Amino acid sequence: MIYMDYAATSPLRPEVRQLLLNCYHQDWGNATSLHSHGHRARMHLEEARERVARLLGARVEEVIFTSGATEANNLALLGWMRQQPAGSRLIVSAVEHPSVWEAAKALTFEGYAVDVAPVDRCGRVVVEALLELVGPRTAMVSVMAVNNEVGVVQPVPQLVAAKGSWKLHVDAVQSGLIGWPQLEGIDMLSLSAHKLGGPVGSGCLYLRQGLRLAPLLVGGSQEDHRRAGTSNLIAALALAEAMEVSVRSRPEELERLIGLRNRLETGLEGELLGRGAQRSPHISSWLFEGVRAEPLLVLLDLEGISVSSGSACSSHSVEPSRIVTAMGYSVEQSRGLIRFSLGHASSLEEVDRVWGAMGPALQRARLQAG
Amino acid sequence: MIYMDYAATSPLRPEVRQLLLNCYHQDWGNATSLHSHGHRARMHLEEARERVARLLGARVEEVIFTSGATEANNLALLGWMRQQPAGSRLIVSAVEHPSVWEAAKALTFEGYAVDVAPVDRCGRVVVEALLELVGPRTAMVSVMAVNNEVGVVQPVPQLVAAKGSWKLHVDAVQSGLIGWPQLEGIDMLSLSAHKLGGPVGSGCLYLRQGLRLAPLLVGGSQEDHRRAGTSNLIAALALAEAMEVSVRSRPEELERLIGLRNRLETGLEGELLGRGAQRSPHISSWLFEGVRAEPLLVLLDLEGISVSSGSACSSHSVEPSRIVTAMGYSVEQSRGLIRFSLGHASSLEEVDRVWGAMGPALQRARLQAG
Repeated sequence: MIYMDYAATSPLRPEVRQLLLNCYHQDWGNATSLHSHGHRARMHLEEARERVARLLGARVEEVIFTSGATEANNLALLGWMRQQPAGSRLIVSAVEHPSVWEAAKALTFEGYAVDVAPVDRCGRVVVEALLELVGPRTAMVSVMAVNNEVGVVQPVPQLVAAKGSWKLHVDAVQSGLIGWPQLEGIDMLSLSAHKLGGPVGSGCLYLRQGLRLAPLLVGGSQEDHRRAGTSNLIAALALAEAMEVSVRSRPEELERLIGLRNRLETGLEGELLGRGAQRSPHISSWLFEGVRAEPLLVLLDLEGISVSSGSACSSHSVEPSRIVTAMGYSVEQSRGLIRFSLGHASSLEEVDRVWGAMGPALQRARLQAG
Repeated sequence: MIYMDYAATSPLRPEVRQLLLNCYHQDWGNATSLHSHGHRARMHLEEARERVARLLGARVEEVIFTSGATEANNLALLGWMRQQPAGSRLIVSAVEHPSVWEAAKALTFEGYAVDVAPVDRCGRVVVEALLELVGPRTAMVSVMAVNNEVGVVQPVPQLVAAKGSWKLHVDAVQSGLIGWPQLEGIDMLSLSAHKLGGPVGSGCLYLRQGLRLAPLLVGGSQEDHRRAGTSNLIAALALAEAMEVSVRSRPEELERLIGLRNRLETGLEGELLGRGAQRSPHISSWLFEGVRAEPLLVLLDLEGISVSSGSACSSHSVEPSRIVTAMGYSVEQSRGLIRFSLGHASSLEEVDRVWGAMGPALQRARLQAG
């Protein structure tokens, strides 16, 4: 079995697996309890927060632990916009993750307006076009660091340089390999553990000191009243560990994955999305003429190869990829999106086997289609 | 170390611990991916859903997995009420958990009205008084099955019997020992894994077939568009396992904990809250004359004994217990709440040690209080 869908979810890194096994061997108190069990849990929770903050270059009080990036993205957009006067505007790029896109859509039913910033043929946000959308009522801009379907790196630094009175949220879920953006000029930033070799169900939102959000989850006073619910200590520790290992192994992993990615892409017949643009080397997305994604995925799956047709969060739908159509491809073309995504355990042998399987699979898929 | 704070969070049951260790030994795909890895994850997720549904007496499509009971309670209240016309009313009891109480409070800022149903001296909801609050605009009633601070069993069947056009939500987080209410007549019901010997970060909301809620988390299509975010497969499996073991061991555990509870309560000098009312045997809450909770907790903690002063979700605050004041005690009295809560690993020896420690601790606390 070859797993090449790291952008959907990553296998656990060995260090995180060990941490999880150690943690679940023990019992932990409730981190808000006053007794020793609770105190110990609280110490570890705050240690996790310190590690996450340090790795991001943030202050400890700027880290809000969440159940994942969907919650972090929702909290950023809904939590900020719901505090703004009716009629306030939000700008999102056309290629945001569903958890940003749907949150923006929800806001249009709550009296807010959403402007969609276009992307170029590579999937990169056109900064000048985005800035033209900014008006006096613009309260927030949300742009991801690395696109999850195409891997293209978004021009976050240019947005930071052009910042006005609006707040900037960055979904940095897919930028673990190339590095999270510098926080200067960024007001909110979302992360997910399971895209970094950590477990599902763990993420965080960086929220710049001094900013307050309307919480999504209310109840207990956890996370300084910004996210109620019993603190998921193990999830927080695992996020910190996954981030730390990602940072530590980044230089070596980056070089290794660039090599693997280049090897996979060399001689593959099809249209590489985002070609020429700066891309994170863990994602390689393609359109193959005359082939729809589903039958190709099935043929590869029969060979024990797991790749995807874009975002797992929307792969169950029959819709064409919103990201690929936003890049200017036709609806028909966008049904052909195949995304290979690599990660910490990807090997040369796997890449070679996948490369070798592509030719016959494409031929069969075209025969079937024809 | 003696842990007697199961109502805050429970140590893992051995079967759940084993399941978690097994699960984290492996790697799992993203349950919405189309390939074999995703398919396998999806199968296990749906198996977990079937088990949870069977144990509750629900249909599979009626189970929504969440990150815990706070999210489930928030989803029920906010998700239902936000679909109602402005001016619609919600009734909650005066002794609900903070995740219900604060959600109700949030709704008052969104154009809805909240009526608070009183409780008697035992902490039990006065059904007649609650029903008097019902009016033509009442859209929902939320009452917990077992109170988390006092353990008193709420008259859910009487509410079901009196049901009108309003929807009934039941927070059943603390009723794992005495059994979850029959679902007939209940529209929504919340559960949490970590109060059942499962892990933190896992819960579910039962939502009666045919009802739709405004989702709290939006993005991917997971949980039939009712809860976006990568499915936390392991959390779901662990919830199912914790529920199954709870049900299987219930008769024996119930009898054993009644014995332990009675032994703890016999001869303890103080006021037992809810005395005479039907209580879940895992909770025993007390007021001790002339003693505030904090110094007593500290003294017990020095003996290695972890008990609590009411809900962990509010124990960090200096506020007196809202639950105890709602029962008619003074603010000063309600600062003295001490909650002992037992569970699957509680032993006779532990109960005897705690009982023995209480006399000297009370004496010292009273001396300190002067």
